[in-house]
Amino acid sequence: MAKRVASFGEVMMRLQVPGYEFLSQASTLNYSFSGTGVNVTSALARFGHTGYLVSTLPDNAVGDAAASYLQKLGINQSFIHRSGDYVGMYFLENGFGARPSRVTYSNRLESSFNTASEGTYNFEEIARKIDIVHFCGITLAMNDSIRQHMKTFAKAVKENGGTVVFDCNYRPSLWGEDGYKKSKRYYEEMLDLADIVMMNEKDAMFVLGMKTEKEERTEQLVDLIPAVAKKYKISVIAGTHRSINGDNTHSLRGFIFKNQTFTFSKTVTFSVYDRIGAGDAYASGIIHGEMEDFSPEKTVAFAAAAGMLAHTVVGDTPISSEADIFRAMTESVGDVER
Amino acid sequence: MAKRVASFGEVMMRLQVPGYEFLSQASTLNYSFSGTGVNVTSALARFGHTGYLVSTLPDNAVGDAAASYLQKLGINQSFIHRSGDYVGMYFLENGFGARPSRVTYSNRLESSFNTASEGTYNFEEIARKIDIVHFCGITLAMNDSIRQHMKTFAKAVKENGGTVVFDCNYRPSLWGEDGYKKSKRYYEEMLDLADIVMMNEKDAMFVLGMKTEKEERTEQLVDLIPAVAKKYKISVIAGTHRSINGDNTHSLRGFIFKNQTFTFSKTVTFSVYDRIGAGDAYASGIIHGEMEDFSPEKTVAFAAAAGMLAHTVVGDTPISSEADIFRAMTESVGDVER
Amino acid sequence: MAKRVASFGEVMMRLQVPGYEFLSQASTLNYSFSGTGVNVTSALARFGHTGYLVSTLPDNAVGDAAASYLQKLGINQSFIHRSGDYVGMYFLENGFGARPSRVTYSNRLESSFNTASEGTYNFEEIARKIDIVHFCGITLAMNDSIRQHMKTFAKAVKENGGTVVFDCNYRPSLWGEDGYKKSKRYYEEMLDLADIVMMNEKDAMFVLGMKTEKEERTEQLVDLIPAVAKKYKISVIAGTHRSINGDNTHSLRGFIFKNQTFTFSKTVTFSVYDRIGAGDAYASGIIHGEMEDFSPEKTVAFAAAAGMLAHTVVGDTPISSEADIFRAMTESVGDVER
Amino acid sequence: MAKRVASFGEVMMRLQVPGYEFLSQASTLNYSFSGTGVNVTSALARFGHTGYLVSTLPDNAVGDAAASYLQKLGINQSFIHRSGDYVGMYFLENGFGARPSRVTYSNRLESSFNTASEGTYNFEEIARKIDIVHFCGITLAMNDSIRQHMKTFAKAVKENGGTVVFDCNYRPSLWGEDGYKKSKRYYEEMLDLADIVMMNEKDAMFVLGMKTEKEERTEQLVDLIPAVAKKYKISVIAGTHRSINGDNTHSLRGFIFKNQTFTFSKTVTFSVYDRIGAGDAYASGIIHGEMEDFSPEKTVAFAAAAGMLAHTVVGDTPISSEADIFRAMTESVGDVER
Amino acid sequence: MAKRVASFGEVMMRLQVPGYEFLSQASTLNYSFSGTGVNVTSALARFGHTGYLVSTLPDNAVGDAAASYLQKLGINQSFIHRSGDYVGMYFLENGFGARPSRVTYSNRLESSFNTASEGTYNFEEIARKIDIVHFCGITLAMNDSIRQHMKTFAKAVKENGGTVVFDCNYRPSLWGEDGYKKSKRYYEEMLDLADIVMMNEKDAMFVLGMKTEKEERTEQLVDLIPAVAKKYKISVIAGTHRSINGDNTHSLRGFIFKNQTFTFSKTVTFSVYDRIGAGDAYASGIIHGEMEDFSPEKTVAFAAAAGMLAHTVVGDTPISSEADIFRAMTESVGDVER
Amino acid sequence: MAKRVASFGEVMMRLQVPGYEFLSQASTLNYSFSGTGVNVTSALARFGHTGYLVSTLPDNAVGDAAASYLQKLGINQSFIHRSGDYVGMYFLENGFGARPSRVTYSNRLESSFNTASEGTYNFEEIARKIDIVHFCGITLAMNDSIRQHMKTFAKAVKENGGTVVFDCNYRPSLWGEDGYKKSKRYYEEMLDLADIVMMNEKDAMFVLGMKTEKEERTEQLVDLIPAVAKKYKISVIAGTHRSINGDNTHSLRGFIFKNQTFTFSKTVTFSVYDRIGAGDAYASGIIHGEMEDFSPEKTVAFAAAAGMLAHTVVGDTPISSEADIFRAMTESVGDVER
Repeated sequence: MAKRVASFGEVMMRLQVPGYEFLSQASTLNYSFSGTGVNVTSALARFGHTGYLVSTLPDNAVGDAAASYLQKLGINQSFIHRSGDYVGMYFLENGFGARPSRVTYSNRLESSFNTASEGTYNFEEIARKIDIVHFCGITLAMNDSIRQHMKTFAKAVKENGGTVVFDCNYRPSLWGEDGYKKSKRYYEEMLDLADIVMMNEKDAMFVLGMKTEKEERTEQLVDLIPAVAKKYKISVIAGTHRSINGDNTHSLRGFIFKNQTFTFSKTVTFSVYDRIGAGDAYASGIIHGEMEDFSPEKTVAFAAAAGMLAHTVVGDTPISSEADIFRAMTESVGDVER
Repeated sequence: MAKRVASFGEVMMRLQVPGYEFLSQASTLNYSFSGTGVNVTSALARFGHTGYLVSTLPDNAVGDAAASYLQKLGINQSFIHRSGDYVGMYFLENGFGARPSRVTYSNRLESSFNTASEGTYNFEEIARKIDIVHFCGITLAMNDSIRQHMKTFAKAVKENGGTVVFDCNYRPSLWGEDGYKKSKRYYEEMLDLADIVMMNEKDAMFVLGMKTEKEERTEQLVDLIPAVAKKYKISVIAGTHRSINGDNTHSLRGFIFKNQTFTFSKTVTFSVYDRIGAGDAYASGIIHGEMEDFSPEKTVAFAAAAGMLAHTVVGDTPISSEADIFRAMTESVGDVER
Repeated sequence: MAKRVASFGEVMMRLQVPGYEFLSQASTLNYSFSGTGVNVTSALARFGHTGYLVSTLPDNAVGDAAASYLQKLGINQSFIHRSGDYVGMYFLENGFGARPSRVTYSNRLESSFNTASEGTYNFEEIARKIDIVHFCGITLAMNDSIRQHMKTFAKAVKENGGTVVFDCNYRPSLWGEDGYKKSKRYYEEMLDLADIVMMNEKDAMFVLGMKTEKEERTEQLVDLIPAVAKKYKISVIAGTHRSINGDNTHSLRGFIFKNQTFTFSKTVTFSVYDRIGAGDAYASGIIHGEMEDFSPEKTVAFAAAAGMLAHTVVGDTPISSEADIFRAMTESVGDVER
Repeated sequence: MAKRVASFGEVMMRLQVPGYEFLSQASTLNYSFSGTGVNVTSALARFGHTGYLVSTLPDNAVGDAAASYLQKLGINQSFIHRSGDYVGMYFLENGFGARPSRVTYSNRLESSFNTASEGTYNFEEIARKIDIVHFCGITLAMNDSIRQHMKTFAKAVKENGGTVVFDCNYRPSLWGEDGYKKSKRYYEEMLDLADIVMMNEKDAMFVLGMKTEKEERTEQLVDLIPAVAKKYKISVIAGTHRSINGDNTHSLRGFIFKNQTFTFSKTVTFSVYDRIGAGDAYASGIIHGEMEDFSPEKTVAFAAAAGMLAHTVVGDTPISSEADIFRAMTESVGDVER
Repeated sequence: MAKRVASFGEVMMRLQVPGYEFLSQASTLNYSFSGTGVNVTSALARFGHTGYLVSTLPDNAVGDAAASYLQKLGINQSFIHRSGDYVGMYFLENGFGARPSRVTYSNRLESSFNTASEGTYNFEEIARKIDIVHFCGITLAMNDSIRQHMKTFAKAVKENGGTVVFDCNYRPSLWGEDGYKKSKRYYEEMLDLADIVMMNEKDAMFVLGMKTEKEERTEQLVDLIPAVAKKYKISVIAGTHRSINGDNTHSLRGFIFKNQTFTFSKTVTFSVYDRIGAGDAYASGIIHGEMEDFSPEKTVAFAAAAGMLAHTVVGDTPISSEADIFRAMTESVGDVER
Repeated sequence: MAKRVASFGEVMMRLQVPGYEFLSQASTLNYSFSGTGVNVTSALARFGHTGYLVSTLPDNAVGDAAASYLQKLGINQSFIHRSGDYVGMYFLENGFGARPSRVTYSNRLESSFNTASEGTYNFEEIARKIDIVHFCGITLAMNDSIRQHMKTFAKAVKENGGTVVFDCNYRPSLWGEDGYKKSKRYYEEMLDLADIVMMNEKDAMFVLGMKTEKEERTEQLVDLIPAVAKKYKISVIAGTHRSINGDNTHSLRGFIFKNQTFTFSKTVTFSVYDRIGAGDAYASGIIHGEMEDFSPEKTVAFAAAAGMLAHTVVGDTPISSEADIFRAMTESVGDVER
């Protein structure tokens, strides 16, 4: 049954050098708008839910372009505020083979979203109109004011009987030096409020400072995740293990921990066209499975296939339909469809 | 020695999304004009023959663009009629890795070609001016009027001492439900008229309803093709086995059955840039080999190399010269030619 | 105050040759989706109303692309049905100076919209959810089934107390030979149901067969429009006179006839970037003025400025905001805004 | 009635910076293939004649691209020789307003055409297969060997009863210092052989050294052209007067002198998209008029309209049909054709 | 004789929507790097001087791209510091006819240039290596730290016997409310240090608060500029009067006031391709004329022609050579140069 | 410590068909400027040295574009002469999989560089201002005059105490029939003057005619290179062995022979985006290692990594920084850097 899902997060402008040139070689950029919240609510809207983004955009040409883009993705704009002056931006130079892709951020701390004042959003009202809310660790890294918004919103949703999803998504460059230490208390506040959490053993060890004597990462996962679930009273924890193979393909294996039980997907191996946003596709798959009461086996397979397909699609934002994902779960690579 | 070859078939407009975006993401399309007849006669013109297309185009801007495009490919336009209103079109979205390519047709049943009335073509006169004619199963699927054109034309060529080539090319989506049953009699009519036929064991089993107790496809082929040749009095039957490998490369093995003898090419394995039209390149290679009196070994190797190279070329239409194909038959992948 | 506006009409795919090449010279196309209904509801959504399109799109990649495009334009998709196989298309080659632009249609009669069966739309329900509905003469030219949809829908809106807008928009090429004679009764049926009508003296003379002894077109207008209003009981009739000047600029003068009184805008003269869809921008301006209870002077000036700006914008669909139009009503051409 | 027309001339590769950037600012080029002979025979093929180019192209990738391009233009390739190593090239940077367009040549003297040896062409055989041949002054400027080809070819055509056209087309940069003096004898040799000549009073004065006491250019024309016709026994002399207006439009007035009588076209004024090749369009119009036995009035009006339209079309090569030109002769600038 | 010229100013990234789409319609951007200092030093380098930019860029991919771009323009990078995190950016949407161009800035206050700390530049050393320095009012509007840099640098140059140029370039949007009042003291500080000043009567009236009883702008100019020169001990004051004509052409008339005498250029009228940066081209012309000891007549004509040509060139940065400008001073619009 | 490095060589214009089309299919080209000297000096400038190109460019739009491009690459233009008429050009069509890339040259023998007269360069003065000079075998193949320039320059550098680098770079197509025989004496003249030489066993065997009984290429190398070093008194000889693998990856192993000792790099295997210019990247790495007094192990590893990265970069010219190369020496392929 279709649910009402909101995500709280920043809209970023992605400025990508086409092909494989460096920014210093090229003269054109492709642009689009994305962000973890955009990616997740857009994917869920494509699966048939109503997807709201709770965010702020400037009331100028860049804000208009972002709003049009979100509309195209099928995101409901009822809770998008227009104020402030800027949209956060990042430049993306595609890598090739031995040369990695490179991301360069412009100043996002002054963005409309990150400077929105306290009363900007009526979280009480929003909470009454949605079933589920999604937050992520990138947003958590921004500033105190944003963190205050997150807590207020999450509490309002809980009080209205809604579900809170939190994706740990720890980005070292955003927290700076001593980041793990700085970030721990904020992560714990969110974990205390969350029902569904996206994370893996690295978050447990590095952000939450938990210890394990295991050395292999699957064993670490199995050791630590139940402890996290217990400590923070989390119903569902899900995540992935990714590895990059010698031939530049990536391999992904998803897991879900629910009702004290781990369920793993098959390891899927695939060529990568656009790496960014694939984690959000996986998260969307988990949320969709939970909202639709899929079995854990089906949920984690669906999420892994969603993640895999997101690597084959242009742009940050997953664009596969539920039917596409079901087909990818069962079929091998095929000939042209005609 | 250069021959005069005609093909009877529709000109389609191919509208391709550049790169790997979906039609719903992009805003530009690359276009070209192709079709089985276009591909085969263009390839044969490139090998030094005179290639005629027998077809109908509208007398408007789209028809003009198609005609210019065919001229560029070196196709002689003497037998192209201008009437009707439309050109058939299809949209192509490129797949990537785990995501298959996707073709969406616009309405081709109302095209100039498919609505051309009975007296449109003077097949008697055309038959006197050509040595060989090529038909394919895609055209056969269109409608009764087209099928009548095909029979009239094929008979006229036979009566003038020419050679009739028929490529089975069964497309399930064109025949709809119970397609095998519906199509059988039309296929048999063409096989009765044909001297050279492109097909493999699947056509024998599914379209012609022939039985075999073999389970492996090469064995099925060896079992069924001689029976087909005998039943329909066909001099040459040729075709391919294709498989898609785990690393997205394709493998192709060609065969030719002639004088009661099978000859197989080596299995060639290659990366694929543009899948569409590669079967036509193989067919062109077989026709060229037969017209030039190549040995069966040379013919099937030439056709397989032509098919392989067609996968590396932009667009539906094979564009390799005879010299390019001979080089690809003997050389391994090389460094830049400079 | 924001109203709920629906338009009933086809979504067309516009395939435009970039720059000034002919289709036979180029190899890429820019595409977008438009149509009179799209243009009008999108413009009204941009002015703050809720804009619904009542239409049918195929459930395939082309339909998905159209739907995304409409979402981007801010059109509410609640009343868009998905069935059938095709989207109508047209090719556009830009003219330059002495060489006019050229439009070539593909087959639209088989489109999803034009083949939608009788029960496709629940007009009763839609009529209850909207305040105003917009139809146009292009749609009227399609076929009997479409005309039946139009009458049913218009009557349902009237019965629910809503307003019916009809834009005469007579296109000779769509009605064929003896088009004026053929079309008259259908136009009269719509005029009988309409509250607001877009037309000028030519429609009165040629479609409705009315006579005037005047020879100058403003005099003809003033002579005939009141008679039309009286005969068909129409509250508001509005339209334009356009002329093309020697230096390729266009001049436009709008009029509105309401409460037995004509009001004319100033004649605005401007350079033209994209001619198509400008009439829809003017119509949107009239509808907006009426919905917002502007004075006739303000309405006609707003509509003329909206029409003028639409000529300066890429694509068929007007994209100016209400503020942009107000500014264009008062300001002269200015320097860069920075 | 359709005639067989040949032109002897070089195929040049045009490398054009898109838009209005300088070569030092941009990073892409649009390319096409043209030349006076290409332009004239292509235009005449479009008018229904058979157009042959007599030229030489290298047997490499650039030669193949040129040959494909000529095929697309509808030029018959029977008399195109393949030898030598290079194609002449020129770079074109578009001007804007006060900034003129700029052409930079690469080395054309080493081109396949300009280095083709004496026996390359079988002019006797070609002459028997054509009705009319076209030469131009640009080719005449190349080298002695080329001039020898021209004379041999022109004589062969005359001997076979064909018609010789010569377009004076004097380009100062090609003849260098003292160019008028150097070139006179070669021009006179061609004029002695020619039946139809394209020129105006400037050629008479500067190349042929004729004197007039008139100061206004139309008076000079009327004074000198009859003397030229008489001296060199030329049946038809035609040409244009062009002026560039303050608003960047160009004005063109054509003339034809035949049977001792001058006929002038109206002065046509128009915006210019692509200046290069417009003179060849005018010449094609004159040749077509002569071949079709148009009246002088119709011929010169047709040629002027062909010249005007060529300024509105992308690329050097005229691409308008006879119907387009007839329409432009009678109609004023119109609205979009749909 | 070639001089050594430095400019102190920010490098901005210009992100321009190609063609005439809005940012909300398009998906690609053209980018380049510019700024008043970039434009002036690049133009002077093109005239044969050594042009230094004194500025700060981040040490990341965007900074590298900016640095490469400046190198391409011929700007010497010896005094470009690399620190901080961001480059200021602006989006440019091209207007068409009645629709003005629109500029939207991203956050430039956090740019590397605007946050460079006090000791970043060794102005003493730089001053010893240059003959002339250029500042502008845009830079002056940034912040106190930047203004401190400007004063220190200007004083160092004066003490070393160099020449100080100041372009008033008042931008209302940068100074905000009460901008004239806020900015006056900073402008006066710069005027006190300047030898050559770019301004006109509006700066005198609005920024400096000077009064005149004249109403026509040339009379105001003649009234006020000598007073400014006297009050602030300025040797040379130059500037322009621009007007935008009904047909979208612009007209420009330059003036120079030197040795108590006004010299005016002719009024030049021209079509505009790219408006931004044209004022910097005019300023470069004045500086060049002064450095080369041109007569005032020649200087102001050269500057006006440089300004005119800059309107015809893609991008902010003037790219005409001295020879191009001399030609534009004397010639009328011509035919293609070939 | 930063050194002053010059290279003597031609600037070529590279005209590349975008994507994978043939020149006969496409209509746009990407262009850039390169050449062995360009590639080497640009790479060394990027590593922090001062890189001079000693070359000649025409004083026209193409020469200006080349000069701007070299400026962008950071090459010092002090020793670039402007005369003559042409820039050498080559067309590049990208291969795909089984289809190799193809290079077609335009006429380079008439280029400004190859026709520069004897006194064009003041080698004495240049030699005094540089520490090291680089030559290559491509230049050596041009003509006697160029070879004379090379010897004069090399001697001047030696006399001033500088270092001479010579890259054998034998290209069969440039020397024509009996090329090894023709070229030997010129190679020996350069080897006699050189301190650092880029070559491998093939050059020793084929160009220098040396004999070995070994059959495996590493054994041949170890057998012959010390003999070469001894015979021509060369301090450092370095080079690579390349192999192309079945999956289209390339493998590269570098060596350096110095102080009677061979040092080999690891064999690096990688995907190839742009093959051309990779050898120059390797040479730059060797020169940089020698100039910076790296150990042989570090030098050869640095050069191999530089060569590998050059295969992943768009264009002929290596664009990696020293830091990028150091990272590639140590790291495995990574995830996106953000």
